[in-house]
Amino acid sequence: MTLDFPTKVQIKEVGPRDGLQNERQFISTNKKVEWINMLSNSGMDYIEITSFVHPKWIPALSDAVDVAKQIERKEGVTYAALVPNETGLERALESEVDEVSIFISASETHNRKNINKSIDETLPIYDSIIKQANVAGKKVRGYVSTVFGCPYEGTVSVERVKKVVDKLLTLGVYEVSLGDTIGIANPKQMESVLNQLNFPTSTLALHLHDTRGMALANILVGLSKGITVFDSSNGGLGGCPYAKGASGNVATEDLLFMLQQMGIETNINFDEYIQASKYLQSLFSKQLRSHQLQIHS
Amino acid sequence: MTLDFPTKVQIKEVGPRDGLQNERQFISTNKKVEWINMLSNSGMDYIEITSFVHPKWIPALSDAVDVAKQIERKEGVTYAALVPNETGLERALESEVDEVSIFISASETHNRKNINKSIDETLPIYDSIIKQANVAGKKVRGYVSTVFGCPYEGTVSVERVKKVVDKLLTLGVYEVSLGDTIGIANPKQMESVLNQLNFPTSTLALHLHDTRGMALANILVGLSKGITVFDSSNGGLGGCPYAKGASGNVATEDLLFMLQQMGIETNINFDEYIQASKYLQSLFSKQLRSHQLQIHS
Repeated sequence: MTLDFPTKVQIKEVGPRDGLQNERQFISTNKKVEWINMLSNSGMDYIEITSFVHPKWIPALSDAVDVAKQIERKEGVTYAALVPNETGLERALESEVDEVSIFISASETHNRKNINKSIDETLPIYDSIIKQANVAGKKVRGYVSTVFGCPYEGTVSVERVKKVVDKLLTLGVYEVSLGDTIGIANPKQMESVLNQLNFPTSTLALHLHDTRGMALANILVGLSKGITVFDSSNGGLGGCPYAKGASGNVATEDLLFMLQQMGIETNINFDEYIQASKYLQSLFSKQLRSHQLQIHS
Repeated sequence: MTLDFPTKVQIKEVGPRDGLQNERQFISTNKKVEWINMLSNSGMDYIEITSFVHPKWIPALSDAVDVAKQIERKEGVTYAALVPNETGLERALESEVDEVSIFISASETHNRKNINKSIDETLPIYDSIIKQANVAGKKVRGYVSTVFGCPYEGTVSVERVKKVVDKLLTLGVYEVSLGDTIGIANPKQMESVLNQLNFPTSTLALHLHDTRGMALANILVGLSKGITVFDSSNGGLGGCPYAKGASGNVATEDLLFMLQQMGIETNINFDEYIQASKYLQSLFSKQLRSHQLQIHS
């Protein structure tokens, strides 16, 4: 039996948003900007630069407007940002991001804990945001978290995931990024979930945290199922400081290396990219979790 | 396309040998014994407890005879040890290990650097060892290192690997453990190599270092190809202190968790096993690389 893999994949860099948002250590605007510029120079063509969630909720990204204004905008790179509501969208549009993302949980409890609303209360808000964003010429991407498991509810039914994904696509997001928020998915489950989510693979992406080290194995399953878009974080930055062992997204450089070794094209220059990883590591006293960083330190 | 996985897998614990052998910090015999006893109690049924290589080459395991004598021998557990030559075999037999392993490289340069002999000079020695071990009622396992890449030669041809594996099986090893010594294998390569190594899958095992984080992804490919024996190391212990970023084997607890989540039986009790990991971690000041240890600390 031969596994089929795509010849080309797009990596979406979420380090500056998903990576930074839970960090207790505030990284200055200057440093964020320098870092993002290095990411831009690596060949990365999609970078989620910040979140326009209210600064009181995510102090780490309180300088969203400044970051968006100060970074170099490299030709061919999509600079995206997370928005939770209309106010966030307004600030994002003023900041001239290229694209916005919205987020919802497959788990009711997680949604409520995260944004203080039920799933059904959240969707109409996003309906409005998507319409407004589209009118302003911006595409909208949707994140669904807890697809493979929830820290509160445990198992999350695939039926529920299907409903939410379907709803988002109907409302007009161009892509849904399926999140393994707690890094609990296993490859057999990944295959099963992807089999059941009968949406065009071109509308799906994977966003996998690497808490238990299975992200690359799960991504391999995703590749074999025709998924060609994967979110990852520079240095593997991220994760919740309040949950034991919680770690960030799979490290971009680890994913990049695997893809390159497999002959799968990404347009990213590894040597340039790892410079960004090293720079990022220099901003933290803790060891970032990327394997490639250990080798290239 | 559905991936087929085995229903049952055997994990072979190599922490006390492959894990410890390159550690600069000497772990006392008492502590080694306590640790191995905990491993025995977890349901692990194969433990490579030490190496009878001359102590001057592997000082970390200079207490091989004492360890073998002092550990509890749990019913149903195979206690194995590495042997490089007849002297080593004699000591192993005196120490009443259940099984011995021998080792050779697929790469000529690596073999010479490792044991100061060519591959062709090494094989007759093992011919003799295997015969003697079998006469003494002991099975022999063969390790082939640098199967997927060599720190000196770079690429290693599959033809060369096939020759060495074939020779070992012909000489009478019951199983060949294919080693990714530098953690360089990628899943596409793993699939290709396993496709080309047309030996019965029951005679093959995988021994993958996790330097670049791809071990679990590569094991997944192995599982899909019908491999049912995997070597791993408690806490992910191991690796060469002289090679940048080199890390040990895939962590047993990370592999165990993935297998259990996939519904693949191992007979190992995770909760008992993680106690051994915690104990091992307590013996080192450095952070062991296992993901599960971070969660269960």
